[in-house]
Amino acid sequence: MIERDSAVYFATTNKHKFKEASSIVTPYGIRLKRLDLEKHEIQANSLTTIVNTAASEFIKNGVARAVLTDDSGFFIDLLNGFPGPYSSFVFETIGSRGILKLLENASNRKASFQAAVAYCEVRRSPISFTGAVKGIVAQESKGNSGFGYDPIFIPKFGDGRTFGEMSMDQKNRFSHRAKAFTHFCKWYTTRKKSGLR
Amino acid sequence: MIERDSAVYFATTNKHKFKEASSIVTPYGIRLKRLDLEKHEIQANSLTTIVNTAASEFIKNGVARAVLTDDSGFFIDLLNGFPGPYSSFVFETIGSRGILKLLENASNRKASFQAAVAYCEVRRSPISFTGAVKGIVAQESKGNSGFGYDPIFIPKFGDGRTFGEMSMDQKNRFSHRAKAFTHFCKWYTTRKKSGLR
Repeated sequence: MIERDSAVYFATTNKHKFKEASSIVTPYGIRLKRLDLEKHEIQANSLTTIVNTAASEFIKNGVARAVLTDDSGFFIDLLNGFPGPYSSFVFETIGSRGILKLLENASNRKASFQAAVAYCEVRRSPISFTGAVKGIVAQESKGNSGFGYDPIFIPKFGDGRTFGEMSMDQKNRFSHRAKAFTHFCKWYTTRKKSGLR
Repeated sequence: MIERDSAVYFATTNKHKFKEASSIVTPYGIRLKRLDLEKHEIQANSLTTIVNTAASEFIKNGVARAVLTDDSGFFIDLLNGFPGPYSSFVFETIGSRGILKLLENASNRKASFQAAVAYCEVRRSPISFTGAVKGIVAQESKGNSGFGYDPIFIPKFGDGRTFGEMSMDQKNRFSHRAKAFTHFCKWYTTRKKSGLR
């Protein structure tokens, strides 16, 4: 059984992401440490497959006894989930301008930010948790805070502003990643209480 | 030293691709066998990194003593190499129509099909070989032979027809993949003759 105070290692080279994750898991009594390593990232259409493989790989290589990995992407309904798992590459090449061009005159502008988090322990299969924020692709880029596709995404939960027009705090509170981490926390703490492995 | 008659395993689940590769390497006296397995495919902007990792992985897992892996993609100059290593996913989601839309009214339509082949042996680092076919993206899709982006690509070496309007034979003879395999063959046979490893 996992000891109550054993740390979980979150593999990320991004300090801000680590801080965001910490602020979510700490209230659940989970001690998070940062593993400053790039994850092993395979090509797959499903974020879940990507994070599961990455978490297993860390465990296989013996870097920690309990590891969390995460991945996220921007999925556009009309474009069959494009850019999805390859959102970074697509952003670096065609950018938000390319996305707006692809959706020119499109009436179905539904999209979502999706996140997957995988947890893996020594001698265990990985288990994954997901989160999503639904919304639409804006007609034009608005706001310059945030990363990537933030300025062209208007979340459903908001007041019509894009993610790019919101503060980091407003965004993080309801983010796809926060949701996935919260699902993990609920599972993790329930498991501890029940003594289940 | 490798024995003169030892086989090289080409990892591909595609019989046609295997046949095409066989027809290139056989004249060089290389005995090619098919390894009917999907390669381990990482996310990377470079085809070379992708095939090297895949070949190393096969060797690490002990599936053969000498393995070839390949990958290819469609790279558009104006779009910073998009869709590149993720050509299959992009084709399945936004398709050729999406590509034509992104290039609407663009005067720079330069593009290339690129291929990389990696060769790896037990206890060796992988070595890779590349090939490319230059051309332009057509104004509209033409011809229905071939796969993926073939109907929207007009190679420089041709007479203005798209890859989709050419026979498999015409295309294969000058293909990016054929070029990469030929580079491999030249290296492999030179090495054998010189007794170098």
